[in-house]
Formats: sequence, structure tokens, C-alpha cells
Amino acid sequence: MTKHRTTLKDIAIKLGTSTTTVSKALKDYPDISLATKMAVLKMAKKMNYEPDMRALALKNGKSNIIGVIIPEVAHHFFSNALDGIMKHAEKKGYKIILTSSYNSLKKERKQLKFLFNKKVDGIIVSLANETKKVKHFDILKKYEIPIVMFDKVNESFECSKVSIDDEKSAYVATKFLLDKGCKKIAHIKGPRHPLNSVSRFEGYKKALEEHNVEINPELIKECKEVTIEEGYNFTRELLTQVNKPDGIFAVTDQVGVGAIQAAQSLGIKVPEELKIIGFSDSQIATIIRPNLTTIHQPNFEIGKTAINMLIKEIELLEKVETADFEYEQQILDTYLVEREST
Amino acid sequence: MTKHRTTLKDIAIKLGTSTTTVSKALKDYPDISLATKMAVLKMAKKMNYEPDMRALALKNGKSNIIGVIIPEVAHHFFSNALDGIMKHAEKKGYKIILTSSYNSLKKERKQLKFLFNKKVDGIIVSLANETKKVKHFDILKKYEIPIVMFDKVNESFECSKVSIDDEKSAYVATKFLLDKGCKKIAHIKGPRHPLNSVSRFEGYKKALEEHNVEINPELIKECKEVTIEEGYNFTRELLTQVNKPDGIFAVTDQVGVGAIQAAQSLGIKVPEELKIIGFSDSQIATIIRPNLTTIHQPNFEIGKTAINMLIKEIELLEKVETADFEYEQQILDTYLVEREST
Repeated sequence: MTKHRTTLKDIAIKLGTSTTTVSKALKDYPDISLATKMAVLKMAKKMNYEPDMRALALKNGKSNIIGVIIPEVAHHFFSNALDGIMKHAEKKGYKIILTSSYNSLKKERKQLKFLFNKKVDGIIVSLANETKKVKHFDILKKYEIPIVMFDKVNESFECSKVSIDDEKSAYVATKFLLDKGCKKIAHIKGPRHPLNSVSRFEGYKKALEEHNVEINPELIKECKEVTIEEGYNFTRELLTQVNKPDGIFAVTDQVGVGAIQAAQSLGIKVPEELKIIGFSDSQIATIIRPNLTTIHQPNFEIGKTAINMLIKEIELLEKVETADFEYEQQILDTYLVEREST
Repeated sequence: MTKHRTTLKDIAIKLGTSTTTVSKALKDYPDISLATKMAVLKMAKKMNYEPDMRALALKNGKSNIIGVIIPEVAHHFFSNALDGIMKHAEKKGYKIILTSSYNSLKKERKQLKFLFNKKVDGIIVSLANETKKVKHFDILKKYEIPIVMFDKVNESFECSKVSIDDEKSAYVATKFLLDKGCKKIAHIKGPRHPLNSVSRFEGYKKALEEHNVEINPELIKECKEVTIEEGYNFTRELLTQVNKPDGIFAVTDQVGVGAIQAAQSLGIKVPEELKIIGFSDSQIATIIRPNLTTIHQPNFEIGKTAINMLIKEIELLEKVETADFEYEQQILDTYLVEREST
């Protein structure tokens, strides 16, 4: 006696729905709700349903579309990383659906759901500042949809990741100011999330500790929006307090540019009286006078690496049913660019 | 006797293919080639084939996806316009597939084909610099897929458009230099395509003519890439020739920033000896010292207006079969921002 093979009807009976609905759900017809589709997929998996060849072809029909979720669109780093993602996706025949979380966890969840529903072949994400837990990404694991995180990544989530070593880079930046003779180094830091601004703060503290310089809370300011304006205002605060810094490590070039402008507004000479270093090496760092010393971050390369990792994973999954796939974690190199501000 | 109603079989016989292929083509199955799909659609239209309700639901099944084709991704204007497109698409429940022509006509055609094949609900495009004729967009008309052009638009193609008045804005910029007492105004212009750099050149000439200032070819330079470097090099050329300018109208802020840096490299004082005006009001204009006077261009608003026009058209088309739709042409206002460079 042959083993009974699960049919669409079996699934329909279990779910108390019609065979037509089950069939349509498996074929991703637009008139079936996402909830129904997911219930059907779940039950089909549970009952070891093996679709016929035609359904399989549809199921495996690649969309050649990759979903991208970034926290901001009009942003120097992300538009350059996106450029890297798109140029290399293009080369391998993929297009991207671009979405933004606008740094909101709620929107990130919504975008993910949409991309999942659109059957993208894979997802590239840089997490929203609000995102601490990433349980919402578990659904991708369940359905074997590859995901690569870049820049703002989650440490515990298992997937391929590409980023820079923020702590080490910040350590290098701070140590550079110490080596230049700065005794009181302020840090205008980013918000407590995402992880990378926390890591930069760690690097700052590590460099000071190693050089036996006490960490002074008066010299630490925390941005909310990480803008030129915040850099300007915090630097004016720092430079008008009793305990003035002689060096500032700014969490980004935007903040660093604001810091230079603030020093100039108070008649304080950069670099003679105050040395300033930024982070990311964006165009504005080369336009401000004095030019901003900064940490060069390979924006385009980060995007390129992320898309190449993702496509590799997508194409491996096509070849083998249960891939013994090892996630990659790539840390791209940064380097210090010395300019006039130090 | 009732009139014979065209069936899938009729179409298949005419095309010498199988009913299955015709059915799959009409349902946009991934295993049917684009060429076949288009042949089937064409024949179906010719034979007045009326699909049954289910097929109709599929055909009319909105993707809620809008295709976007921009000439550059990592570019201040486009990333801000894109931000406007995405935020307002989001509000109305649409997502975008982002593609870039990288200023190549060939790639623009390829992207259009892809988006057409993906059945996007509509397309927003800013033309590639290379694009002179836009015959490749005719297919959208044929299949009633709405398209909106923004920024780099084609004058003769009939569709809704949103842009600024480049000629008038350039006229305002040049007239401002004349009113400030400049006698020899140079123009560092953009390439001959797209239209908007040509229009800016027209505005420059118009202002000079109206003020009876002769147009001197020695004072006109033409960029290829429209970068800071080109602005720098052309300005050095202009300032080291016998016939030196006392004012420069730069086609973009990038070129204007290069012009300021070149003047400084030669010890020429801005604005005392040379007045410089840019175009677009990007962040770099506020960072360079002296700050760059410029024409403010509403980047985000341009994107927002384009997406709102497109969604309006998509939703009108849903309601009426043959819409008596009037294309809109919106010209958004620009204004001059006076800063230190003049």
C-alpha cells in the first residue's frame, strides 16, 4: 500500500476552507489575504504537502527582486551604499524594491511584511535606530528567505552581515587626538541605539582608559538626530563651560562640521586651540575649512559586499534543498584621513 | 444567433501556439517569455478577447508597486526627490522598485522593459542625459500604464510632468550678478543634454541680452560630469586668461563650490573681486566659506508632486475604462538665496 499523499483537499478540510482558496493561496493570487496565505503555507508544510511540478515551478519562480530596508533615504551613507547595492544587483540580473523604516520599528515590521508578501528572493536590511529585538525577522528563516544585514546589524540574529569595526575605528580616532597632544577629549556621541554609535563610544572610552585619561561625563554629549546643528550646539556648550575640551571626537562628519563652525563662531582656532575629528569621510568633510580629519568608511563597498553575499546565498539555496550554508560576517577596513582640523 | 465570443483557443490558433501558453501568458506566469506575453496580449486586444471574471481580477490585480527610473542614485538632488517620492507613495499604500539608468539610454530602455514586465502600476522617470528621443516610452501609452516625468523631462512626450523653470531661474541668477555690478559674467554650463542645463544656458543668455551685455564665448565653459573638480578647473582657466570674469554663474552648487575653491587657490577674493552663484541649494552651499549664493530648488517637493500626480492618474484609470484624462504640467517655484559669495 502506498502512503497517502497530501492533496489540496486535505489541507482545505483541515483549515475548513475550500480547495480553490488553498490552491490560490499556494499560487499567491492577489485576491487571497496574507493571513490566509500564511495559514495555508504553514499547514502545507506541517502536512508535508508536495505540490505538483507546475505549482513547484511557480513556487520556485524567482522574482529576481531583492527587498531593501534602510533607515533613511536622503542620507550620504545610505545613498552611496544603495548605489553599491544597485550596481551589483544589476550586474547579476536583480532589481530592488526600496523601502525605508524611517528609523521606526513599526515601519520596519510593515516593510518586512510587504516584502515577504511580494515574494522577494532575499532581503538586505540596515536596522532602524528603534530596533532592539529582531524577532520579526524570524519569518524569513522559516521560509528560507535569505537576509543580509549591513551597517546597523543585530549581534544575536543569525545571518550574514557586513559592517565596519566601529569600536576599533573610534579607538583609532581618539588615540590620534591623544597622540596629537590633546588632554581633554570630548565625545559628541550618537543615540543609544543603533549599536554602531554605542560601539564608537566604547572605542573612545577604551583609548582614554589605555592612556590613563579619566573619562569625564562633562565632556560627553549625546545627539538625538546626529545633525550639523546638534554638533554646533553641543560644541558651543562644551566650549563655554569651565572644563573646556582641547579635542573633539564627533560621531559623524555632520557633527564634526557643526563643531568646526561652533569653534569659529566663538573665535576659537581649529586646530591650534581645538582639534576635531569626524567619522565617515563624506563630501562635506572636504568642503569645510579647515578640512575635517575623519575616519574613511567604504560606503559603496559595504553595499556591494552585502548584495554579493545575498545573491551568493540565494543562488546556493536554489541548488540544494537544505543548504549547509555558513553565514559570513565581513568587517570592512576603515582608515584615518588626516586633514587640517587636527 | 449570438456573436461568437473570442476564446483562448481562438487566440492560440491564430498564434500557432497552445491554449495553455495563451492562458499562462495572460496570467503572467514566470515561465512564459516577455515576447510571447506581448504577442498574446496584442492578439487578445486585436480579437477583442474578453477575459472571464477571474482572469480579469488577475489582470486588474494591482501590484501597488511603482517603478522609478533615475539617472543617478548617490546624488543630492535625486536622493532628496526619492525621499519625497517614497514618503508619499508609502502614505497611499504603494512601494517602489528603484532602478537607475546611470545616464545611459540603453540602460533606461532595459529598466523600462523590466518594469513593464513586472506589471508596475505606474512609472516615474527622470530621463538619462543621453536620452533625446523617447519612443521607448510609447509602450506605456499602448497599455495605459501611467507615467510621470520629473526634472529631466521630454518636451514632446505627452504625459504629466513636474519640473522647475530652469530658464527663468537661470535668468534670475544672472540678473542678480548684473544688478550687483558684474560686467563680465562667465557661465560654467552643463552638457548639451539634458534639457535643463540647456535651459539654464538660455536663461543666462537672455539676461545678458536684455542688459545689452555681449555674450562672449571665452567666458562659457561646458562640463561633462558637473563635478566640484570641473568647477575648480574651469574657474582656474577663466581666472588665468586675459579676459577674466568678475562674476560666475555655475550650473550647479557642486560647480560653484569648485569655483570658490579655485578663486581661493589663486588668491582672488570672493565676493570682492569675483562673485559666484550656484544652483540647487544643496548642503555643501552652506558649508563652503564664503557660503554660496544659489537658486533654491524644491527637491523633496518635486518628488512628492510627481508621486501624487502619478497615483491620481493610476486611481482615475481604475475607475473609468477610457479616461478623459488631462495631463498636468507643474512648474514648481524656485527662489534666490543670497549668501556670502555675492
